[in-house]
Amino acid sequence: MSSVRCQITMSLDGFAAGPNQSVENPIGEGGMRLHQWALKTASWRRQQGLDGGERGPDSEVIDEDIEGIGAYIMGRNMFGGGHGPWDEAWQGWWGEDPPYHTPVFVLTHHPREPLEMQGGTTFAFVTDGIESALEQARAAAGDKDVAIAGGASAVQQYLAAGMLDELHLHIAPIILGAGERLLEDVGDPTLEPVEVVASPTVTHVKYRVVN
Amino acid sequence: MSSVRCQITMSLDGFAAGPNQSVENPIGEGGMRLHQWALKTASWRRQQGLDGGERGPDSEVIDEDIEGIGAYIMGRNMFGGGHGPWDEAWQGWWGEDPPYHTPVFVLTHHPREPLEMQGGTTFAFVTDGIESALEQARAAAGDKDVAIAGGASAVQQYLAAGMLDELHLHIAPIILGAGERLLEDVGDPTLEPVEVVASPTVTHVKYRVVN
Repeated sequence: MSSVRCQITMSLDGFAAGPNQSVENPIGEGGMRLHQWALKTASWRRQQGLDGGERGPDSEVIDEDIEGIGAYIMGRNMFGGGHGPWDEAWQGWWGEDPPYHTPVFVLTHHPREPLEMQGGTTFAFVTDGIESALEQARAAAGDKDVAIAGGASAVQQYLAAGMLDELHLHIAPIILGAGERLLEDVGDPTLEPVEVVASPTVTHVKYRVVN
Repeated sequence: MSSVRCQITMSLDGFAAGPNQSVENPIGEGGMRLHQWALKTASWRRQQGLDGGERGPDSEVIDEDIEGIGAYIMGRNMFGGGHGPWDEAWQGWWGEDPPYHTPVFVLTHHPREPLEMQGGTTFAFVTDGIESALEQARAAAGDKDVAIAGGASAVQQYLAAGMLDELHLHIAPIILGAGERLLEDVGDPTLEPVEVVASPTVTHVKYRVVN
């Protein structure tokens, strides 16, 4: 069976987002500091349709993380658009051609018709829980892997439920001091570090989750 | 000038000790899980006067961490013996020949005469703050480095004060869920990962602190 993978950046003090997330600060105050390492890479820029950027270990790690993904699952907060019933004008943060290029399943308590974007990305809204979302994502992914895109709460739920096979942490050498913790309320999973890639800006550690 | 270094194990969720530290559980409940990787090594066993143990990257990391240390500083809680005025019968957790073999400066609010142990370890009790302890430790260390031995609070104080030059984190792939956080109340230091050593049991990341 294909794997369920998650790759996410965490500050050294354990946060995956800064405090006070809002439309102005989707990853919370200071949260963009987490992702500076990625924004500089050739891989990330290519996904946004941009030239240039740094090649090297960080870029290669991103290439590897997106390779072989057939569907994504994300939490409502990562898709954005506030809480409660949907404002149908909201189509996510990523513009008309989001960087997923696969089906994306959004966990939500509020039903909404699917959205078809450009470039192969579709957003489907799943209201009957994480297990159902995973089943649908697996079906959509075929023999490819499913990625839990984030945010922290979605990762926590899949990890706690024993449904995550691989956690690829990008450990950023920054102290956020406050925000949304990544590894809270996840129980006591058995994690095995299976691959470490070092760079001057971030440390990538891939953990196999023994479920 | 010689460096001020700290090497310490942190769980993946950011704890340097488990909850409810006590004489029975000096590193808190579950806290010993943090140190399983070290206890197996040849280096650690040799420090305790024991034969055997695993050689390899983890053991080499410990060798490197103790090399060139001329004095240690530790918090009162790491030395143990409870809170408040000293019970003079308490001589630390480590027996008559502690594994430091250098002067050790213990941060405390309660004065106490120095203790001379076997094997070159002396414990001096410093009541006038972390800066004074560092001055005394530097003087005792000569051209060797000073190590902040722990616990979390002592590390936090030196890091927040801009007095730490190097933080060597052993990131253990375990989730403690509760306990004493390592990187709390440390401000916003600039950390540069300068060396990463991977092993199947723990990930060692050495950070240079830009003060």
